Amino acid sequence: MSSTTALSGYRDKRAALILRDRSLRRENLRVKALTLNEIKADEILRRIRADEEATIWKEEHPSIPHPFPGMEFLTGKSIIVRTKIFEILSKMPKGALLHAHLDAMVNAEFLLKLALKYPAFHVRIHQPLTVANLPTNLPEFRALSEDLFTHSASLTDSGYAIGTWVPIRNARQSFNAEFGGPEGFDRWVLAAMTINPAEAYGTHKTVAKIWQKFASTFITSDGLIHFQPLFAEYMRVFFLTAIEDGISYIETRINFLRKFMVGADGRENVPHREWLLMFDRVQSEVKMKMKIDGREDAFIGAKIIYSTIRFITPEELEWYLEDCIALKKEFPHLIAGFDLVGDENALKPLIYYIEPLLHFRERQKDEGVDIPFLFHAGETLGDGTDADVNLYDAILLGTKRIGHGFSLIKHPELVKICRERGIAVEVCPISNEILRLTSSMPMHPLPALMNNGVPVALCSDDPAVFGNMGLTFDYYQVFVSSEVCGLSTLGGLARDSIEFSTLNNEEKRQAIAGWERRWRDYVDYIAGLV
Amino acid sequence: MSSTTALSGYRDKRAALILRDRSLRRENLRVKALTLNEIKADEILRRIRADEEATIWKEEHPSIPHPFPGMEFLTGKSIIVRTKIFEILSKMPKGALLHAHLDAMVNAEFLLKLALKYPAFHVRIHQPLTVANLPTNLPEFRALSEDLFTHSASLTDSGYAIGTWVPIRNARQSFNAEFGGPEGFDRWVLAAMTINPAEAYGTHKTVAKIWQKFASTFITSDGLIHFQPLFAEYMRVFFLTAIEDGISYIETRINFLRKFMVGADGRENVPHREWLLMFDRVQSEVKMKMKIDGREDAFIGAKIIYSTIRFITPEELEWYLEDCIALKKEFPHLIAGFDLVGDENALKPLIYYIEPLLHFRERQKDEGVDIPFLFHAGETLGDGTDADVNLYDAILLGTKRIGHGFSLIKHPELVKICRERGIAVEVCPISNEILRLTSSMPMHPLPALMNNGVPVALCSDDPAVFGNMGLTFDYYQVFVSSEVCGLSTLGGLARDSIEFSTLNNEEKRQAIAGWERRWRDYVDYIAGLV
Repeated sequence: MSSTTALSGYRDKRAALILRDRSLRRENLRVKALTLNEIKADEILRRIRADEEATIWKEEHPSIPHPFPGMEFLTGKSIIVRTKIFEILSKMPKGALLHAHLDAMVNAEFLLKLALKYPAFHVRIHQPLTVANLPTNLPEFRALSEDLFTHSASLTDSGYAIGTWVPIRNARQSFNAEFGGPEGFDRWVLAAMTINPAEAYGTHKTVAKIWQKFASTFITSDGLIHFQPLFAEYMRVFFLTAIEDGISYIETRINFLRKFMVGADGRENVPHREWLLMFDRVQSEVKMKMKIDGREDAFIGAKIIYSTIRFITPEELEWYLEDCIALKKEFPHLIAGFDLVGDENALKPLIYYIEPLLHFRERQKDEGVDIPFLFHAGETLGDGTDADVNLYDAILLGTKRIGHGFSLIKHPELVKICRERGIAVEVCPISNEILRLTSSMPMHPLPALMNNGVPVALCSDDPAVFGNMGLTFDYYQVFVSSEVCGLSTLGGLARDSIEFSTLNNEEKRQAIAGWERRWRDYVDYIAGLV
Repeated sequence: MSSTTALSGYRDKRAALILRDRSLRRENLRVKALTLNEIKADEILRRIRADEEATIWKEEHPSIPHPFPGMEFLTGKSIIVRTKIFEILSKMPKGALLHAHLDAMVNAEFLLKLALKYPAFHVRIHQPLTVANLPTNLPEFRALSEDLFTHSASLTDSGYAIGTWVPIRNARQSFNAEFGGPEGFDRWVLAAMTINPAEAYGTHKTVAKIWQKFASTFITSDGLIHFQPLFAEYMRVFFLTAIEDGISYIETRINFLRKFMVGADGRENVPHREWLLMFDRVQSEVKMKMKIDGREDAFIGAKIIYSTIRFITPEELEWYLEDCIALKKEFPHLIAGFDLVGDENALKPLIYYIEPLLHFRERQKDEGVDIPFLFHAGETLGDGTDADVNLYDAILLGTKRIGHGFSLIKHPELVKICRERGIAVEVCPISNEILRLTSSMPMHPLPALMNNGVPVALCSDDPAVFGNMGLTFDYYQVFVSSEVCGLSTLGGLARDSIEFSTLNNEEKRQAIAGWERRWRDYVDYIAGLV
């Protein structure tokens, strides 16, 4: 055999092996042959990515140690937003957002601005503020009934009686200059509702520690969000900003742990069905608005994944499951599924709830409803721990998708089941990184899942806390961390987010047709760059 | 179906699924049924691990941010050595060490002490030392021929002429008090030959940056190690310390890039075959010593993986391949295989050398020798980059094992090939972490590889630079980062290190029999704890 023949034989075997190794990737399913425009757009995207890796990502910055594509999001964000790739991805039609906790979907700054419009909102603290304890002395917010309104002038005056409610506007206006005055108040509140780089990469640099901070952000924002007059506006802003980021359909997890929201009268008396009525009204209004604007493809609606927290007892869970069934019967088009949320490493595993969860299936049959499980599972670094083992239970219980599934790649049998049964993983790259499951995107198991043919939907999880509003940031981190990832990968991920939603077949067909129309325009836009 | 029946049916299915998911783990192959003592020893190990996780690993230390089992090695080491698990693992018979670069196998402090015995050693610097540039102003060492010996008194006197050789003992003795005197000299030299936590986790916290520091440590130690009189002693210390750590067989990579070592006469005139003669003599002496001590099982010998660096040209590689063949013909019992080493992310990919590497197979046939490839491949965070793609070439070229294979888990077809053809991965947990492929052991892909039935040998890579002397530290990091990992996992890994060595079948049979004898004693020792 001549050396040339041997060489060409080698190159053929090599190309075939690479093809075979990547043959399970789901982007292969979407299109058999790329159009000329798609090929051109892919080349343009790859060229810009390579250029930016060699230029903007090579600059050293005093405030950003060690920049690289896919780096720690909270420090890299200011570079990301300067890139052309980010600009291009922000215009991408992204399909569905399938893993998004309603309590963290509106920019924290905007939430605070919204709250300042309502005289009902009051704030208090439980120990005197000092410059030193400002980051840990968290504000507690509540909308009060008029009879409980106070005229307290300030949180920071020496006369402030600890634990007393102060009208939020007074508190802001009179916030002591020592703490930065009204802008200092804003910074204090925002810091309590978000995670900053010093926390994620310094003081709270382990999964356990950052979860403490993470959980505290929800406690702070809870009192602002769960006030009926604000809630509707909050949802509207969520839908509208998502649409502007190219998201056309949403399945959001709502935490129904608290049985009543605070009503316009300041009393905790708004039951879950009223929450759904509001949700339904707001999404209808937004759909109508899109229709009027001639942008029907831009928003096909939103559904709710009923969630409660995995620290309740199995007996308490029975109540929530019945509540979920009742809501599904009244609002069959709104309830998309059921989930249990919270830190898997610290709270109860699925097996702890096995009796009510098995019973739930029987009860659905009795009631003639179908409420798929959409469980969080494997959001952990553990190997063989309760949180990791949750993956077995999620799958045995028939989960339709897996929230996070960060440790799924460790489990060959479960990877196979997910691929074969079409159980999609809701992958939240930026959330995983900030919550310290991975140090940066290049360390994330996503490429391994994709090469194994596991269906994936990219998700933002809790963007109000992380700062990754929309889906563009998560797509960015994925796209710049892999040379395998190209335009078809992006398209495949977006399409799969619709494919693995809980929409019925006819809804899916329409949603995908709408998305394909927008995708073609998007490809044309990229192909027209240069 | 009653709820109890449903529940018990569920639990059966769950146990079966977990079993199936873990069925590919290679530890299942070693023993079908555990002895009572093995069961007891496993329980004891797991209990101590859990106790230490809840106690020693929960203490906060001013100098160790965020301790946890499997944490960053350079900061966690001082906790590790205080644990009972470490003490127990240090006594474990570890089988073979299959991935170890000879240039980094002897404690740097000991190497410096050795060097100080030889008047031939001189040192110089290329810019004046200052307190500020001490960490980056690296010493250059060389053993000189007597005619070039100098009487220079000091590196740090104002009279020092930059670039002049100073006898190492003079340089040490006269090292300026401003830089810490003689102990300051030791610290300066050791810092140049090792990676410290401030570098790995601070100033050099990316793969690219830490590789710069990593590479510089070899440049510094090179002049000390490659001096024939010291080289023999160096290898003896390497073998003896490995044996004391429970390693009974070694395949070490020797970098043959430089064609001659410095001889006792201070001239660079010792060719490769002399290196092998020394290697052979030292290992025979050590084997003899063990035999005399009645510890024959403790050391069955050492072989060499011929290596050169992946920055040479394909033409230059032809020379090394022929050199390797010549050495194999003269020392068939010493040459175990061939490899190309160096930073895969920065240097040439395997495909660059494809012609000489394909030709090498033909040449081996001509010469009637068998020299397996034992390639480094996939030591990278890249996805689809040259370094990642090296995995395809390594496997197509028929590599017998894979060095690192950090990105292997991304490749389902390659994982399957490794499992089916028995291509073992030389996994170097601590090296991967310090060189910033993973931030800590719980993020490492090892559990995924093991659950996929890929054969694994744990290795230390470059312990003189990382501080993970022996194999105990690497076993420690693996053992405390996984609840799935138990005594049989440890035994399976150790046994596989022999199984996937290049020993022939008869040698393997004997080596494994010897290891099994020691393993039984080890199990008895653990079972006798409490």
